[in-house]
Amino acid sequence: MFGKQPQIPQAEIVVIGNEVISGLIEETNSRVISLRLQEVGVDVCRVTAVGDDAAAITEAVDGALGRADLVIATGGLGATHDDITKDVLARLFHSGFREDGRVLASIEKFFRRRGRAVPDYALEQGSVPEKADILYNEQGTAPGLLFHRDGKMLYALPGVPREMIHLLEKFILPGLALRGKRKIAHRMLKTTGITESGLWQKIGSAEPLERRVVVASLPSHLGVRIRLSACGEGDLSARLEAAEKYIRARAGDCIYGVDDETLEGVVGGLLRARNLTLAVAESCTGGLIGHRITNVAGSSDYFLEGAVTYSNAAKINRLGVDRELLDRHGAVSRETAVAMAAGVRRVCGADIGLSVTGIAGPAGGSREKPVGLTYIALNAAAGGWCEKFIFPQDRVHNKERAAQAALNGLRRWLADKT
Amino acid sequence: MFGKQPQIPQAEIVVIGNEVISGLIEETNSRVISLRLQEVGVDVCRVTAVGDDAAAITEAVDGALGRADLVIATGGLGATHDDITKDVLARLFHSGFREDGRVLASIEKFFRRRGRAVPDYALEQGSVPEKADILYNEQGTAPGLLFHRDGKMLYALPGVPREMIHLLEKFILPGLALRGKRKIAHRMLKTTGITESGLWQKIGSAEPLERRVVVASLPSHLGVRIRLSACGEGDLSARLEAAEKYIRARAGDCIYGVDDETLEGVVGGLLRARNLTLAVAESCTGGLIGHRITNVAGSSDYFLEGAVTYSNAAKINRLGVDRELLDRHGAVSRETAVAMAAGVRRVCGADIGLSVTGIAGPAGGSREKPVGLTYIALNAAAGGWCEKFIFPQDRVHNKERAAQAALNGLRRWLADKT
Repeated sequence: MFGKQPQIPQAEIVVIGNEVISGLIEETNSRVISLRLQEVGVDVCRVTAVGDDAAAITEAVDGALGRADLVIATGGLGATHDDITKDVLARLFHSGFREDGRVLASIEKFFRRRGRAVPDYALEQGSVPEKADILYNEQGTAPGLLFHRDGKMLYALPGVPREMIHLLEKFILPGLALRGKRKIAHRMLKTTGITESGLWQKIGSAEPLERRVVVASLPSHLGVRIRLSACGEGDLSARLEAAEKYIRARAGDCIYGVDDETLEGVVGGLLRARNLTLAVAESCTGGLIGHRITNVAGSSDYFLEGAVTYSNAAKINRLGVDRELLDRHGAVSRETAVAMAAGVRRVCGADIGLSVTGIAGPAGGSREKPVGLTYIALNAAAGGWCEKFIFPQDRVHNKERAAQAALNGLRRWLADKT
Repeated sequence: MFGKQPQIPQAEIVVIGNEVISGLIEETNSRVISLRLQEVGVDVCRVTAVGDDAAAITEAVDGALGRADLVIATGGLGATHDDITKDVLARLFHSGFREDGRVLASIEKFFRRRGRAVPDYALEQGSVPEKADILYNEQGTAPGLLFHRDGKMLYALPGVPREMIHLLEKFILPGLALRGKRKIAHRMLKTTGITESGLWQKIGSAEPLERRVVVASLPSHLGVRIRLSACGEGDLSARLEAAEKYIRARAGDCIYGVDDETLEGVVGGLLRARNLTLAVAESCTGGLIGHRITNVAGSSDYFLEGAVTYSNAAKINRLGVDRELLDRHGAVSRETAVAMAAGVRRVCGADIGLSVTGIAGPAGGSREKPVGLTYIALNAAAGGWCEKFIFPQDRVHNKERAAQAALNGLRRWLADKT
């Protein structure tokens, strides 16, 4: 991707700030810039983060301008003593300073609107490098700067995310969108319930795909996402369609959604389409399934109720699980999971009862019932099922995997009903 | 900070992966590495992210080794076709390959433990650069690598966060901790239930603090964290103690925990110490409070049960909320919250009942009852309380803030009981 396709404008990002390289703050600007640039057909080839240090900033910006067509720097434009980006760039571009009346007026307006006098440090922002074009900033006191060198552009933007995005959208993206001839389009296929290697065994070789699109396989503990990217001049969405169709023909049952779709959103759509209501009984997941289902706006149309039956007494009193059954098989057993699903459906008057019981860890495991052992059951008028899992991670990851597996089991069951 | 204090070992991080520079994934490794290196007195001066491209990786690693004493690279060590870090580094260090029996054995063990046959692609991981020391990885199939050049070190670690941290802690940090002369220490004070400006009005000027420590104020929608950092040769923990004492004297009631403590962990500790049991009734939070409480290992000792009473019928049938009360005041009202808390305590036989009812949004709001309106109530033998909030954000953030406010209300109530 780097230096291979000279017709595609290439960009680098330079992030400036001690708070970034020390890990004090989570740096989100570079990701936002990268995603937005891609939308107008510009690839980001490198992101460099340096501290508020003149030599480091100079070297990073100079190096980036040597490689890329477009460099976007963020941070260090404020008015405190450690913000040195403006001075460093002025030196790098051999520029003096001038006072900018419009920047000063906007600073005065900014403080007046907030009912405060203009502090001295803010007035200093009115001094700008002579050789820079000014990106007037209505959202804060530090203007953005644009320098040119050898047909290349360096933008310097404030580090405050809201101000950065404002200037990016106002001054940078529109021009690039007009310039950009190449287009780029992505599609994310989201799978769960299968390992990365298992998924690719189903799909087989990626080669037929790679003639049309770039394929990235992105595993996490909740599933594998496949990202398809098409880049160029033709009908990109047709190429993405064809690639998606190729994968769906081989592993379609593992795919729960595309792009921004969530598993809980897809499950909600299926429940709504089939006019079915749901109640859940959660033991080890502690409420996470209910939380995820209710993250979907309008979920009250199909989600009736959740029972977080953590204690055995709750399983007996709330869900009508038989005490003897609990004594005989234990709270984490196929029998208990099945009784919980049936119980929650009956008690809540729902069409579907979904249950989870397991040992999240770190304590509570034994040789016969290790940490991570989890049973998931579904009960409905037409029948049901129970599945066993052994999740291998820590308490929180095991809870997340159990909730994901329960929602995916429900999805597959709903998808089979027509 | 850059190149100024030659006695302090300086590090750079190189992050490798198309998915990082394209913004596809949120990159968290560099921040974790930076924070952990600081603890052993090593400053990170630069973070460079490049794609899976041989020229870009080579230039980034080579440049970093030219500037820093220690370079940590992450990513691109997997077995898929776009993982090229191992080959690129072998070329950069003029190294051939050899087969490593211990890596092969660990790969076989890794797959055997999961009951799967070793796939061909995984076996390829057994081939390692001759000139590298091997960091054997029990958490995955890709080993880490250590190369030396001119007294400097380059570590290459897998990009999977869990594996990266495992190798960092096992192979890198212990050696650095022994070498490091300068010390640095941090303490994080965690507050919630107060705005950043409200908190600093309570604390007053930070100047007396800043003579002892560096202070950073870090706001989020769930609260404000104050980070204290002490750096130098003296008794750092005494300086942190004094700074913490200064803040606690002014805003101690807002502080729920220190460093890694979580709000749900602190609440659990208080319940355990007071020998009290808890049941929760959740409407708009949908199970999130139960999920957070049960993220704490051992929570079954005090958490009996949660009722996710999303529908009115559930509030009536499960908690005994009066139908007329619901009709008169609505599901989102002080009266309903109070009845839910009393009901869940009675039904579950708990010492404390905690309830939340609200309008998470985006729909369901009105002029009298806007989106974000939330009531939180607590009921116990000794009495109780109900508090009203209007959260101003989107559905998921409003749910998170409601759960946080409920847990914090419970914490403050428990803290007052002696």
